[in-house]
Amino acid sequence: MKKISQHLSDSSIKEEKNMDIIKGGVTAAKGFEAAAAAAGIKYKDRTDMALVYSQAPCEAAGTFTQNVVKAAPVKWDQKVVKSGSKVQAVIVNSGIANACTGAEGYGYCEDTAVAAAEALGISGDGVVIGSTGVIGKQIPIEKLTAGIKVLAEKKNDSLENGTQAARAIMTTDTFEKELAVTLKVGGKTVTIGGMAKGSGMIHPNMCTMLAFITTDADITKEALQKALSGDVDDTYNMISVDGDTSTNDTVLLLANGLAGNPQIRYGSEDYKAFAEALHVVNEYLAKKIAGDGEGATALFEVKAVGCESTEQARLLAKSIVCSNLTKTAIAGHDANWGRILCAMGYSGAQFDPEKVDLFFESRAGKIQIIENGTAVDYSEAEATKILSEPEVTATADVKLGSSSATAWGCDLTHGYIEINADYRS
Amino acid sequence: MKKISQHLSDSSIKEEKNMDIIKGGVTAAKGFEAAAAAAGIKYKDRTDMALVYSQAPCEAAGTFTQNVVKAAPVKWDQKVVKSGSKVQAVIVNSGIANACTGAEGYGYCEDTAVAAAEALGISGDGVVIGSTGVIGKQIPIEKLTAGIKVLAEKKNDSLENGTQAARAIMTTDTFEKELAVTLKVGGKTVTIGGMAKGSGMIHPNMCTMLAFITTDADITKEALQKALSGDVDDTYNMISVDGDTSTNDTVLLLANGLAGNPQIRYGSEDYKAFAEALHVVNEYLAKKIAGDGEGATALFEVKAVGCESTEQARLLAKSIVCSNLTKTAIAGHDANWGRILCAMGYSGAQFDPEKVDLFFESRAGKIQIIENGTAVDYSEAEATKILSEPEVTATADVKLGSSSATAWGCDLTHGYIEINADYRS
Repeated sequence: MKKISQHLSDSSIKEEKNMDIIKGGVTAAKGFEAAAAAAGIKYKDRTDMALVYSQAPCEAAGTFTQNVVKAAPVKWDQKVVKSGSKVQAVIVNSGIANACTGAEGYGYCEDTAVAAAEALGISGDGVVIGSTGVIGKQIPIEKLTAGIKVLAEKKNDSLENGTQAARAIMTTDTFEKELAVTLKVGGKTVTIGGMAKGSGMIHPNMCTMLAFITTDADITKEALQKALSGDVDDTYNMISVDGDTSTNDTVLLLANGLAGNPQIRYGSEDYKAFAEALHVVNEYLAKKIAGDGEGATALFEVKAVGCESTEQARLLAKSIVCSNLTKTAIAGHDANWGRILCAMGYSGAQFDPEKVDLFFESRAGKIQIIENGTAVDYSEAEATKILSEPEVTATADVKLGSSSATAWGCDLTHGYIEINADYRS
Repeated sequence: MKKISQHLSDSSIKEEKNMDIIKGGVTAAKGFEAAAAAAGIKYKDRTDMALVYSQAPCEAAGTFTQNVVKAAPVKWDQKVVKSGSKVQAVIVNSGIANACTGAEGYGYCEDTAVAAAEALGISGDGVVIGSTGVIGKQIPIEKLTAGIKVLAEKKNDSLENGTQAARAIMTTDTFEKELAVTLKVGGKTVTIGGMAKGSGMIHPNMCTMLAFITTDADITKEALQKALSGDVDDTYNMISVDGDTSTNDTVLLLANGLAGNPQIRYGSEDYKAFAEALHVVNEYLAKKIAGDGEGATALFEVKAVGCESTEQARLLAKSIVCSNLTKTAIAGHDANWGRILCAMGYSGAQFDPEKVDLFFESRAGKIQIIENGTAVDYSEAEATKILSEPEVTATADVKLGSSSATAWGCDLTHGYIEINADYRS
């Protein structure tokens, strides 16, 4: 079963050996429930709170923003994940970031955990929190606790509820983002599902968005954290919408063990299979976030190949994908390769500009633009045709080695300005 | 005499002791001539070439882009400045960058120098070159050499010709940028004048624009280079329009010694006076470039104060001024202080977010927005009034020390997208 998603084709989802893509998101794995509620925290006419709940306590792993300014929920989650507490619920609101809110704001995290624990009949140590929205405003805690009660009543394990949760966490996103996959571990079916929101404030320096991944795998906390930490640098950290790293970026991965598989330990074959499947979910969600950047009309994929090291490849790919000048060129369907070479040049990576080859590719075809640092005699009309597709790939080959990296972003359009001149985030 | 310039008030020009602001630009200093020509290199109906010529050979200092990809004229100028050759002419074209053009492109620099030397009756070693425009296209050398002949015929030392040269080097700039000052050195009047162009591809990592400064001071090559190198980090390197560092950034400073002052040596009192006057010219031109960013409607000045070091202050100020989210907020006259704290947080500088104070200021008044990391009870209406002026200053105090830095940028508007989706740079 293939999930047919919005706006962007899913042609790029790799079906790994021993892996299937199935319908659903955070409720696809056994024992996970979800719900959405309209708590009126910021929005009047839409849901703005989500619950992810596990019938059994979960091992929890997380990665968080590297911004010096961390929102209160980020500090809260870091404490919970580090403590080793088993986690059973995630409470998310998409109206208020609860960042730059001081001791009062952190107190609302405690209140949230207490209210969720009471409503769900679980331990307060087992509640993690995600938030996104306006910075600097305090949480209207009565509305939030009222919302928690609604979430606790409405929660169930249907795929529909998972989708509703994925919708409730959106801010300026234009569609919900979710995916689920299954793999076999010791004869048992293990499921990994997730949801994410992005759009504003998307930048490589850590995920810069919210992503919640659930799995029924039985896996050690060490293996879970390593699988997540080892993957974010290739997925969420390689996307950029506007170069701003948010105060609230959070990726949480919860494993409740209900699949009944032999426990996955770090370094084993089963671990590798689990990590690969997790990567498919993360990459899919990351690409969906990139392609749904504020005002975006195209997903812009950049591959740096022939590099001496992965670090060099990441620097080059990210520098290209973050350049406003490159992104406006993509919006204009313009094969402006000079801007791409320029962005490579100030990336911080060392390379020989006179060795670079550059290609553009999309469903409309593939074309070489530069060979050894200067333009080949390509057709501008053909290049424009290729660049007019909703998914465009630029591949830069620096011919120094065999390392590579891929980054994802979007074009920069009038829509971005419209959204951000008025939206108070 | 105060020069009354376009769009932005000149209230910020400091009149140093022993210094006057006078009319003019590159032709203000003794013995300097200029001209503009319509060579048809890219534009059809405007001038696109400029000459700056000195009647006497000049000591030359320069600072250049840090981009790994350097345009051919940048490589040429670096060679000339390093060689110690005396310089007598600058040839600029604003149609074609001559970047990513390989050996053929570098050859056109040699051709340019030969043609200029012949037309002006000077040595080919004494010709430096500036260029800006389309990357990757080769120079139409016949048009360029024809343009050089016109420039050589038209050149004179009038202020009007200086202004015409300042106009000819513009690309997407909306007005020419020039300033001149005088100071007394050993009883003699020394003049420093300059012109610059910016607009697209403006970023802190080196000047990211073209600036040509002329002076009739008698000054050693060492002192000249140190005065320039010591100042660019506080001026051209502190401006940002879009975060992209160009392949062509060049600041050239020429001194022909015709003022007849006692020679200025590095470290002397006269050197300090000269460096201060040069700073006034550089800061003025840098601010004009920032305020004339593509599509900009406001100059956005950011001061980081109370810092532990100048480096920390620069990181903080530049991170705020480069943030797309901050810049769109300024375009929307929105006191979005959360975005400013967020940009400080990912700047790479360490500080305590819960100590930060933030103020907005303009001709319409001054208002405190944050005290110790959280919002004070300020009036949104008053903040919007302050942010609706054409020059807006944000001051962030991290209360750690006594160092400070100032950065300049502009708001991010629809105009930026319009210009860059179509302009092939």
